[in-house]
Amino acid sequence: MRIDSLICSRLDRRGIEELRAGGVDAVTVTCGFWEDAAESLDSLVRWRELVTENQDITAIVTSAAEMTAARAAGRLGIVLGFQNSSFLQGRLGYVELFADAGVRVAQLTYNIQNDIGGSCYDPTDSGLTRFGEEVVAEMNAHGMVVDLSHVGNRTSLDAVHASRVPVAVTHANAFELVAHPRNKPFEVLRPLVERGGVVGVTTYHNLTRGFISTPAEWAEMVARTVDELGVEGVGIGTDANQRGTDEYREWMRRGRWSRRPQLGAAPPEGTPPSVRPDWFAGPQDFGRLGDALAERGFADAELQLLLGGNWHRFYDRVIDQERSVRPAWSVSAA
Amino acid sequence: MRIDSLICSRLDRRGIEELRAGGVDAVTVTCGFWEDAAESLDSLVRWRELVTENQDITAIVTSAAEMTAARAAGRLGIVLGFQNSSFLQGRLGYVELFADAGVRVAQLTYNIQNDIGGSCYDPTDSGLTRFGEEVVAEMNAHGMVVDLSHVGNRTSLDAVHASRVPVAVTHANAFELVAHPRNKPFEVLRPLVERGGVVGVTTYHNLTRGFISTPAEWAEMVARTVDELGVEGVGIGTDANQRGTDEYREWMRRGRWSRRPQLGAAPPEGTPPSVRPDWFAGPQDFGRLGDALAERGFADAELQLLLGGNWHRFYDRVIDQERSVRPAWSVSAA
Repeated sequence: MRIDSLICSRLDRRGIEELRAGGVDAVTVTCGFWEDAAESLDSLVRWRELVTENQDITAIVTSAAEMTAARAAGRLGIVLGFQNSSFLQGRLGYVELFADAGVRVAQLTYNIQNDIGGSCYDPTDSGLTRFGEEVVAEMNAHGMVVDLSHVGNRTSLDAVHASRVPVAVTHANAFELVAHPRNKPFEVLRPLVERGGVVGVTTYHNLTRGFISTPAEWAEMVARTVDELGVEGVGIGTDANQRGTDEYREWMRRGRWSRRPQLGAAPPEGTPPSVRPDWFAGPQDFGRLGDALAERGFADAELQLLLGGNWHRFYDRVIDQERSVRPAWSVSAA
Repeated sequence: MRIDSLICSRLDRRGIEELRAGGVDAVTVTCGFWEDAAESLDSLVRWRELVTENQDITAIVTSAAEMTAARAAGRLGIVLGFQNSSFLQGRLGYVELFADAGVRVAQLTYNIQNDIGGSCYDPTDSGLTRFGEEVVAEMNAHGMVVDLSHVGNRTSLDAVHASRVPVAVTHANAFELVAHPRNKPFEVLRPLVERGGVVGVTTYHNLTRGFISTPAEWAEMVARTVDELGVEGVGIGTDANQRGTDEYREWMRRGRWSRRPQLGAAPPEGTPPSVRPDWFAGPQDFGRLGDALAERGFADAELQLLLGGNWHRFYDRVIDQERSVRPAWSVSAA
């Protein structure tokens, strides 16, 4: 089972085919960054339409068991996720409603502090708010993965400890290896992994400086991460944005919160730009990641874990188990 | 199985107990009148909270089979419905999302024309719009009952013919018996019933003038309705508003569409007010409706149909069957 734990692409059939060409069995996609509740429902409608139109090669999956079923049917499994919690629009009760609608992953914050906590770019990280504590508990109860990738370190650590079930960093690298505010220090990643969480190391060039020119460099970064976190705590989240337009990138970075250009993870003006690697052009090259890790010396069983086994186990534990509990307001027909 | 096909109460525990005291097994409630998508989600959250707090005596039911299961468990079955389609906020795709969230009944319009069609109070009824045709087909596909109670006659007839499955009037009387714009002429009701639909005759005093002073009068109105529509086409929808406040009634009638007082179904100023019957104070008196119909001479088998059997069969046909079809975007875990 090969899993890419995060892409931010606006998928189309070609994008789906690229993921399949790379041998990816399941992928967590981005349904939104800054959208309010209605806009987020709009996004869910569009994802359902896309998958319905391409049902011969893809399916929305809401559990690890469905990932397996989709793979058996030759369909790419799509896990619906949001990179922000703005879809909640401040309402705790929407966690259950969006979970009912198939959403399985939600990042607590995107690039700006919200009512839940602080982001990785905020100079002062508030930590998890009281609402944030409620949201984490509610996500736990409804099998929605708590994603901390863009979340501030203090808020992340608070969430690791607040959560009753393991939490995830779907797409970031270790800060000690690549010093970027979007990457996470081991003091956050270690307790996350100790509690059953998984970290999706990324190929995104802005977060991989010094480890991205060759497959060997990238595999070296993964190996050092595994040295610190153990082979069961690491997966892959490419953060791929297949044929992303400037307009889409601007929406990600600036949303509606600023009138000035915003850079997101890109380096500030005047510093040398980071360069996209030619050996990893997108998910169609996912297989090369496996090759690079094999070359680096990982055994086959380790490779299976790193390429998707860890994420499959994580999703199975966090999603399936939780949603199997019927809500108290319902009744089962005999 | 006793079913009240529509109440507009803001339920609380006392209201639930009143329904149970009246022998009601399942009831369709009103989750909203004018609310947009987010406000409608808020309402769903509140209903789930209410039912969770009172799970010992009630459950949200999403199928006829669950109605039966709830009754067996001694819990009042609550069917979630809206008296308007404003929760769609113009989005066809929201039908599926709200169906996923458990909504099983939606009235196409409330008291004012919308993007779907004309209401019973509009001087010119547009008929079902092109969006309206799409919405009816989508509701059919997702097991959401098309309710025409407040809908204009032309739009209603259009919907009767457009719908692939039977449609409902959950709460109105026959216009020929009580001439009120909210009541429906037999030229609408007859084709609705011929196609498997059901009409919920009401006790609401503004729609029952001349047939509400005594139980015998009301039973006479039902008998005449049955004479025209057949015993399989008639059920009961009380339109009860238990301890409804003036503020709540004003929200129903005026919403946000007018600055002037609006009367809804109440008689215009200067005409004599209609009077609430003392023999039917609310759902706790539902049993009296059965007594009155028995007194009027309906046989036991007929009573079972009128008091809930017809609605149970209708919901079974329209809701269960449809939702059993898995959407094309999903995959079943083995």
